[in-house]
Amino acid sequence: MTENIYDDRDFFAAYEQLGRSMRGLDGAPEWSSVRALLPELVAARVVDLGCGFGAFARWAVSAGATDVLALDGSARMLERAQASTDAPGVRYELVDLNELVLPPAAFDLAYSALVLHYIADLSRFAQAVHDALRPGGRLVLTTEHPVFMASTRSDFVDIEGVWAWPVDHYADEGERTTNSLVPSVRKWFRSTGTIVNTLIDAGFVIHRLIDWTPTAEQVAATPALEEERDRPAFLLIAADSALR
Amino acid sequence: MTENIYDDRDFFAAYEQLGRSMRGLDGAPEWSSVRALLPELVAARVVDLGCGFGAFARWAVSAGATDVLALDGSARMLERAQASTDAPGVRYELVDLNELVLPPAAFDLAYSALVLHYIADLSRFAQAVHDALRPGGRLVLTTEHPVFMASTRSDFVDIEGVWAWPVDHYADEGERTTNSLVPSVRKWFRSTGTIVNTLIDAGFVIHRLIDWTPTAEQVAATPALEEERDRPAFLLIAADSALR
Repeated sequence: MTENIYDDRDFFAAYEQLGRSMRGLDGAPEWSSVRALLPELVAARVVDLGCGFGAFARWAVSAGATDVLALDGSARMLERAQASTDAPGVRYELVDLNELVLPPAAFDLAYSALVLHYIADLSRFAQAVHDALRPGGRLVLTTEHPVFMASTRSDFVDIEGVWAWPVDHYADEGERTTNSLVPSVRKWFRSTGTIVNTLIDAGFVIHRLIDWTPTAEQVAATPALEEERDRPAFLLIAADSALR
Repeated sequence: MTENIYDDRDFFAAYEQLGRSMRGLDGAPEWSSVRALLPELVAARVVDLGCGFGAFARWAVSAGATDVLALDGSARMLERAQASTDAPGVRYELVDLNELVLPPAAFDLAYSALVLHYIADLSRFAQAVHDALRPGGRLVLTTEHPVFMASTRSDFVDIEGVWAWPVDHYADEGERTTNSLVPSVRKWFRSTGTIVNTLIDAGFVIHRLIDWTPTAEQVAATPALEEERDRPAFLLIAADSALR
């Protein structure tokens, strides 16, 4: 089993304090955009790849899903998720997503939020997810945006009075070690093109691609979000398993 | 007819001196990546949307295309294109691409290099191109990359010893006035997601998406290309008209 950063005590303690951890789906400013990519969930079979505290799994059940398989690579996360819910229809399982094996054509929706950048072999992951969806089933994923991840320096700079996000080393795909809540977190950087093409090669048809930035209304309600309009922090993709 | 920047004498004079203008397709470092997206051209009917000096139109004929409709919005460009070729099978036409009208299902390939950022109404353009392709026909396009275009400042900066490209105002889609060869060139900025989704909405299936950066080999051969590995300058997309 791959070592999981969420099992690191310091990382977990910091992660627990994030708005998106404390306030669930509504604590994530991209959630309304993500939700718009989801298919009808009544009677749906869902697999949540990297379920975290289980907020999406519980929401999916409330939206009508009858069977939600919620997977995570962190025992600490799953413990917390299980303590937070007794929603019928949700099954939690400890799974290394780098070694994902799922039953064929068993799901209507695969959901994966902010996990892709921890996956070492994206081709393997995309194929496993594709084959687990029924023909016409949908994958909805979010990931740290390549523009956000590429940079050596993960911080805005003031350049002659303009607040800007410096991008460098975009061509150098592969491992990135960043300070993200704690020092030296290992992630995998890939360009938007590589992510899209890997999904297409696995048999997906791209349905939607969103370089997520907050709306002007969101910034008005939460001024701290303003800098998020300068560069996309998240990439959202909806892709369908082709009807065969 | 929309005013065309290529009819501006100073812009045209500067454009003529670019490597990609003087040396044709091989003067463009992204050309080998673009070529890999093209379908078989033997007996193909091709429309070139923004043909410039006609380098691609001539190449398409040499690759076997039997009919190439080469369109451009600049009379000055077309004059030069026509003077450069007597390739049989190429027809040049002065057309405002913002008001593009084409015969239905008449082409196997639509090609558009570095023109999209001058198109005001992308939905209209995408639909016109889609409907002009036969079912299963392909669109191959290149455009200035959104990461390149978004920035208020179009130049690298040295940030504590790291050469980086500052990105800002990515969320603000729409008109951008930039200094590009000459001052105050008007372009239209859209995110990668918006470009992709507009193509999908017009009926295209995304086949390939490339955030173009040069290879290490290209940089070894042309050291001036090195900074191009820090951020993608071009977005390349291949998309197919769905088989109906």
